Amino acid sequence: MPQHPTRYEQLADDMTQAMSDGLLKPGERLPSVRETCHRRGVSPSTVFQAYGLLETRGLVEVRPRSGFYVSAPKRSLRASLQPAVPRPEATEVAVSALAFDLLESTRDPAVVPLGSAFPRGSLFPVDALARSGARAMRRLKPEQVTSALTAGDETLRQALRKRYALQGVPLASDELVVTNGALEALNLCLQAVTQPGDVVAIESPTFYAALQVLERLKLRAVEIATDPVEGVDLDALAAVLTRERVAACWLMPNFQNPLGALMPVARKRALVDLLAHHGVPLIEDDVYGELYADLRRPPPAKAFDTTGGVLHCSSFSKCLSPGYRVGWAAAGRFARDVQRLKMMSSLATSLPPQLAIADYLGQGAYDRHLRQLRALLADEQQRVRRLVLRHFPASTRVTQPRGGYFLWLELPPTVDALALHHRAMAAGISSAPGVLFSADRRFTHHLRLNVGHPGDPRIDGAVRQLGEMAASMA
Amino acid sequence: MPQHPTRYEQLADDMTQAMSDGLLKPGERLPSVRETCHRRGVSPSTVFQAYGLLETRGLVEVRPRSGFYVSAPKRSLRASLQPAVPRPEATEVAVSALAFDLLESTRDPAVVPLGSAFPRGSLFPVDALARSGARAMRRLKPEQVTSALTAGDETLRQALRKRYALQGVPLASDELVVTNGALEALNLCLQAVTQPGDVVAIESPTFYAALQVLERLKLRAVEIATDPVEGVDLDALAAVLTRERVAACWLMPNFQNPLGALMPVARKRALVDLLAHHGVPLIEDDVYGELYADLRRPPPAKAFDTTGGVLHCSSFSKCLSPGYRVGWAAAGRFARDVQRLKMMSSLATSLPPQLAIADYLGQGAYDRHLRQLRALLADEQQRVRRLVLRHFPASTRVTQPRGGYFLWLELPPTVDALALHHRAMAAGISSAPGVLFSADRRFTHHLRLNVGHPGDPRIDGAVRQLGEMAASMA
Repeated sequence: MPQHPTRYEQLADDMTQAMSDGLLKPGERLPSVRETCHRRGVSPSTVFQAYGLLETRGLVEVRPRSGFYVSAPKRSLRASLQPAVPRPEATEVAVSALAFDLLESTRDPAVVPLGSAFPRGSLFPVDALARSGARAMRRLKPEQVTSALTAGDETLRQALRKRYALQGVPLASDELVVTNGALEALNLCLQAVTQPGDVVAIESPTFYAALQVLERLKLRAVEIATDPVEGVDLDALAAVLTRERVAACWLMPNFQNPLGALMPVARKRALVDLLAHHGVPLIEDDVYGELYADLRRPPPAKAFDTTGGVLHCSSFSKCLSPGYRVGWAAAGRFARDVQRLKMMSSLATSLPPQLAIADYLGQGAYDRHLRQLRALLADEQQRVRRLVLRHFPASTRVTQPRGGYFLWLELPPTVDALALHHRAMAAGISSAPGVLFSADRRFTHHLRLNVGHPGDPRIDGAVRQLGEMAASMA
Repeated sequence: MPQHPTRYEQLADDMTQAMSDGLLKPGERLPSVRETCHRRGVSPSTVFQAYGLLETRGLVEVRPRSGFYVSAPKRSLRASLQPAVPRPEATEVAVSALAFDLLESTRDPAVVPLGSAFPRGSLFPVDALARSGARAMRRLKPEQVTSALTAGDETLRQALRKRYALQGVPLASDELVVTNGALEALNLCLQAVTQPGDVVAIESPTFYAALQVLERLKLRAVEIATDPVEGVDLDALAAVLTRERVAACWLMPNFQNPLGALMPVARKRALVDLLAHHGVPLIEDDVYGELYADLRRPPPAKAFDTTGGVLHCSSFSKCLSPGYRVGWAAAGRFARDVQRLKMMSSLATSLPPQLAIADYLGQGAYDRHLRQLRALLADEQQRVRRLVLRHFPASTRVTQPRGGYFLWLELPPTVDALALHHRAMAAGISSAPGVLFSADRRFTHHLRLNVGHPGDPRIDGAVRQLGEMAASMA
């Protein structure tokens, strides 16, 4: 359970949220100490403490005799918005084969995992989960096996429902389906709302698994320009929705993979309204939502859904238990369809890992673990970002996400990131080249780096080596 | 590890196998004791002990002053072979909805589970598996999580490969992919060898999940007549293969669901040759192969594959650990495609249940458990079959499978089995009506009964009640 923040933490929290929501922009001056005292009814020392905390976090900076200003991130990436284009079918298989090779390479523990999709294994409470699993299995009754078909273990679903409710997202009692990780949830949700040949709107760049799933389900994609800070371009999306019949929209409003973009609350609300207006379901991939660097969990788009049109997918794989493959879908008005598809494709999710997680959640240690994990990931992101700025070619631009554990790099246009990736692999360093993240190989000089491996002694050397390789290719 | 059988058990075993293989047919006289002594070089008492064992098992009967004869099962079902017909698309959704309702109903522990797909939960070594799981998780290293992507835990795959090898089916080292139960394996294999719109040959009647999977993957089915004793009609299959382009064949050569048919060895061999000749992959669903009532495991069709065209799928869900959802595919020359599809659809199989099973297999208790399970299921099948013969209308015919845990009943044609199912459900008894097992609702007066619940005190009353309801509707 979260502890109550002190008054100054609460204040810093509110300011941070205002920055997240785009209400306080980089370079903007914070309200003066006097003004804030007056407005919030707190003492000057509380305000100073709050502003100091924001400064420590690198969110604001002091300008002598002027005041506190929202930090403008150094060499930050704010991509020019690209027009939305439908994806040519022919490139699909190549993306999938490349992604497959990348996954293969990250299986080898000797390779430095800058291309990996997961945070470092030692960040997770492996032993506590094992104890929970042992305890839960001792209590297992044989009948539970059939009663958990197909939607999942009832205790786990209750615990999930409670977390949603505490985040202000009440769910219907039968809306949740437990799945084999978020990836199965996304597959099932997409299949529930599409037919082969349909068009699906996705972000650009987009998570390569989305491209693979579309490929597998014989769907066509239209890629919508996406801002590295504020997420998908709603004007571009609106234009596409007006122009053609879109069967579904698949987006990551919180810490988009690979950009790390966080849609401000107002933008999420507008997105949900826009899609509801056009009757288009939103498949919301929210696997990084718990890994925020600010003080509060950003709400999912699902929080603003009034028509049951948002199918919210997440998992424990990035936050608690990679390898357990426990995810879920809260599929709105499509919940029964998703459950039926689940029955046809894998029948049910493995019970022991569900019971282990349910027991672990019941112990009340999850939020404490998450707080530690968030702090470690946020620090490591800043640390690796500084290394990137030091070692990569001077014109390299890099995102500064407010959560998740990826950096997205735009290298000088002359650097072929795929060639860089292959060269680095030969030196035992993996990375995720930009071409993976679009069907039409748009991001040729871009790279996604995993910064979720704090404490791995190989990271610094690998980032330097990668940067030097890039420089030699520029 | 299996114990060595005594000499007389070995002899009985060989005779049983000859019956399984169709070399000794019902009503046929066994070789005389003298002849067998001579041929096998054993003593008369060994032969008498062997024949006595076969008699105890109900496989042979003594005719005074004449000898031993292969038993002809009472009121056994040997269906007239039906012509193969392509499946009309329109009926698909109805089957799926009905199957969904059936599954929902069997979740309720208060309902007598004659319609269930699983054996009784208490037949499985739940506690030993839990201990194995706890032990394995204490040893887990965080790196294992990524190294097990996507094909599965290496120790488990080694153990599986060993079992295949001992059954005379050597596998390539990277042929196995661990899946979320056999159902995911079947889905992935089918997807690896087909495109939407393709035609797939299946048995008739067939396992309803096969119909659902075809529905999900937008495939068309051609149903091949299937004999309740010897399995799919090869002449009918050959005619279809000559007549039209078939993309794949999905069959259960061992203890077919729902018929319990066991293809004799010669027939399996001919099947594999026929399909290889036409270049058609065989997806072999072998989830009941370990649950044989005879003395030896029937080989899978995969054992006769020389071209890598057989994709063999199975799981531990019916033999060891329902609810763990650990299955696998040995997908021959399609193994890499299956692995790639697995990466796109669920990324990987949950690790804790894989590790639990790998540890359990390493303890050497699996074969002992299987022997006990087989004996319990075989006895219960005979017991329930006698109850059916006693309580159902006189003209009811019923299969006598040599493995698995289903009986297939052909009721008088006037009994609407779906109506019977609904009536029984109202009385708290589930059953699986025949219409579930064909897309064109061919088996209107047929019923599949689960006889895998030995020791459940409600079974006898439920079978009697069901029989009386059927009689009242005849």
